[in-house]
Formats: sequence, C-alpha cells, structure tokens
Amino acid sequence: MTGTLTVVGLGPGDPRYRTPAAEAALASATDLVGYGPYLDRVPERDGLVRHPSDNRVELDRARHALDLAGAGRHVAVVSGGDPGVFAMAAAVFEALEEARSAWAGVSVRVEPGITAMLAAAARLGAPLGGDFCALSLSDNLKPWDVVMSRLRAVLAADFVVALYNPISRARPWQLGAALALAAEIKPSETLVAFARAVGRADESLAVVPLAQAVERAASADMATLVLIGATTTRLVTGGDGARHLYTPRSVGRQP
Amino acid sequence: MTGTLTVVGLGPGDPRYRTPAAEAALASATDLVGYGPYLDRVPERDGLVRHPSDNRVELDRARHALDLAGAGRHVAVVSGGDPGVFAMAAAVFEALEEARSAWAGVSVRVEPGITAMLAAAARLGAPLGGDFCALSLSDNLKPWDVVMSRLRAVLAADFVVALYNPISRARPWQLGAALALAAEIKPSETLVAFARAVGRADESLAVVPLAQAVERAASADMATLVLIGATTTRLVTGGDGARHLYTPRSVGRQP
Repeated sequence: MTGTLTVVGLGPGDPRYRTPAAEAALASATDLVGYGPYLDRVPERDGLVRHPSDNRVELDRARHALDLAGAGRHVAVVSGGDPGVFAMAAAVFEALEEARSAWAGVSVRVEPGITAMLAAAARLGAPLGGDFCALSLSDNLKPWDVVMSRLRAVLAADFVVALYNPISRARPWQLGAALALAAEIKPSETLVAFARAVGRADESLAVVPLAQAVERAASADMATLVLIGATTTRLVTGGDGARHLYTPRSVGRQP
Repeated sequence: MTGTLTVVGLGPGDPRYRTPAAEAALASATDLVGYGPYLDRVPERDGLVRHPSDNRVELDRARHALDLAGAGRHVAVVSGGDPGVFAMAAAVFEALEEARSAWAGVSVRVEPGITAMLAAAARLGAPLGGDFCALSLSDNLKPWDVVMSRLRAVLAADFVVALYNPISRARPWQLGAALALAAEIKPSETLVAFARAVGRADESLAVVPLAQAVERAASADMATLVLIGATTTRLVTGGDGARHLYTPRSVGRQP
C-alpha cells in the first residue's frame, strides 16, 4: 500500500481564502501534520489523525510526514498562506533528498495557497502593482549579512519589498535594522505598510512613512507582514473616502 | 444608489484554484469587466452583464468599470491569477486618481487570487523556497534599461526570479535578452523553469539548465511563466520517481 504526501496551503486565516483544491486535499487526508495553530484551522472529522508540532523543527516534521506516507497513510502537511513561500514545502523536499528506503513509492505534491503578501496587498489596495520581492528576515537559516545585502540590492533597484518573518522573540532587532537600512537608501516619505493577521478577527493595517516605520518596528510581531513601497508607491482616496495604497504600473527612467 | 467595484482574481485556469471569496464577489456582481478570455471563465447567469475587452487599454477598462459603479452597478473587474500582480488592480487605482465626480461614493476592494508564480511553483515543487522576486519583462510601461538593471540586481543577489510577461508578438526578443544577461551572471547549470498554462488542459512544464534556456526562449509565449533559480535551486527525486524542483531554505555565506 503506497501512501501520499500533499503539502497544503491554508491561505490567510479566513477560510474564504482557501482554495477548493486545498479543501479537497484536506478532505482526502488520513493524517494532518503541521504547526498546532494551523491544524486547529482544519475541522475535526472521523478517522482524521492529527500530528501537531511547534513551529520549528520543520525538517523533523517533514521526515515524520514522509514516514507516515511510507507506511501507507495519506498525509496532508499544512502551512498557513502558501506552502512554497517560507513554509513547509521546501522542508519536505529537503527531507526527501535523504531518499530513505521507507519512503519508496511515496508521491509528493503541493497545493498552493494565498500567501500573506498577496492577502495583505489586496486589503491595502495594490501595493505590488510593480516589480516586487519577498525576503525573509529570519537569520536562522541564512547569515544576516546575506539578508542585508539582498535587501540593499532590491531597495536600490526600487522593487517593492515584502518582509516575511520580520520579528520574533528570538529575533527582536532584525526588523529595526532592516528599516534603518531602508531609511539610508530610500526617501523618508517612502510608504511602509504593516499588515497584521490579515483575514483574521484581529486584523490590523497601518501605512506610515519610512521615517515613522523605523520607530514602529518594535510593535510588529510574527503575524505581521511588512511591505516597503517603491518610490512611486502612494495613497489614493476612493469615491467613498477610503484610502488605498498602490504602486503605479509605470516606471520612469531611473537616475 | 451607490455602486461598488471589486477587482477579482480568478487564479490560474482551473476553477479549483479560485477562492470562495472570489466566487462570492462574482456571484454578487451585476457587471463583469475584463479581458474576454477571463470573462469566459465565469459561468453565465441571468442578469449578469458582460463587458469584454482586449488585453490592453487597462486604464480605459478601469474608467469604464468605475463609470458603471458610479451609475449604481456592482462591478467585478476580473483578472487571471492575482489582480494585484501585473494585472488590473493597479490600473483601477490609477484611474481612481482622476477622482471624477461621477465616481463619488463608489467603494473599491480587491479579492486576491493564486498568482501564476505560486501555481507554477506548486506544480514544479518548491522553487520559491528561498527569497524571490517577481519582475515583468514588459517594456510597455517601464524603460528596458530599468528591466535589465533590476534583473541584474536580483540575479547578483541570488534571488529566485519569476519573469512575468516574458514574451509577446510585439515583444519577441526581451526574454532572450533577459536570459542572456542571466547567463553572464549565473553559473551555466543554474536551473530555469518554463511553466506554461498552469492549471489548464494544455499545461506544460520544463526545467532546463540556463545554457539551454537561452536557446529555448523563443518557444515561450504570453501564457508562460519563466522562473530563474538561485544557485542553490535543484532537482530532487521522490519515492515514486517524480522529479521536483526546489530551493533549499538555507543559504551559505556568499562570496
């Protein structure tokens, strides 16, 4: 009996952003593997076995999921947002490189989801309207000088930059350092968005100039996505008075 | 009577990748505005008025949608993928800056979707497992030297790069030039994926080393997303023999 492993993107908190393909993968799973709070977003069902873990040890979690699939189970590894964006999919393929004999015959596939950057952008307006980058500020798996040199490169080239994993208890100063670097490179009026818990009851959105964003860094948390605008990113007021953040599609000749 | 305008992301071709939130926005619309082939993906319904257009003149289409909403209609402007990624959302906000009196009271919101980059990545494996960028190769609204300087910056910083709008009848040489630039910067064995029509019946996927990708450029078309891997991006073989493209989460110290 050969098992399967599907890495499933739950999207942002609101299940209205979860795709039917992801729902189908969850409905056909015998086992759920993932970070506890993500598993809690999947309704109980007879015969569905849950294997919650904390939000680290991704590689152990991936091996465990592959072991279950190797034993004939149909395993859904769940991630918030999109599993391919700073989430479980890469960890599963990393584990798969170990090519353990117990995993023979197991097929692996990935079901995409709405990643935080897209959900936040939609709520804010269209800040990703031009070229953009997604950069993880975590230096758990990447030296901090690489984070800074990548950030410098894309800010100088005037991409919109989405910062994932901006801050955590173990990494309290990285976001402040990243925004301070941005303040050296970009005009002080460059707009920065803090989008927290998008699609959840406690969602909050804020758009501030870069100069204020540096001071605000400490108020962000793990559920926050930070978007640094391009020089052209701006606010427009709608016919109902609502303010929207957007990046025009056009780019002039750069200095 | 005040109308509304919702910019709706249909996701990739397969409706199983369309979110319930997008479906709800389509179900409550009185009018659909968008590129004809996208409108064709929304089922007929009594009382639903369709306003198809070709795939240019985005700003005219946005003004038309705002005019309809200003006249009290509930308008869905539809985009494939995510409307905030090289699609209609930014055009709507650009039009909104004209602040025409006919648009008073109109509210605008955006429903996100699975953008081509995420759909292609899921099908391929997890090539976006590290930091990544999305860059439009179209020089309709952006000087070509800006495209090239941005591409140079992110390739040198070893981001994975998703190239949107790689080629069209009016822009036949840009993808070849972009890949030739990549070949100057990255090792020749860097992996490049061509993902065409993901989620549609005629889907095709190919992964080739950069040296071959340059030759292959002419075979791409408007429905193709091109992903240039990081130096660490590689193939792994699953327990069932399937090959998956992925980018490890870890990054070593860069030279």
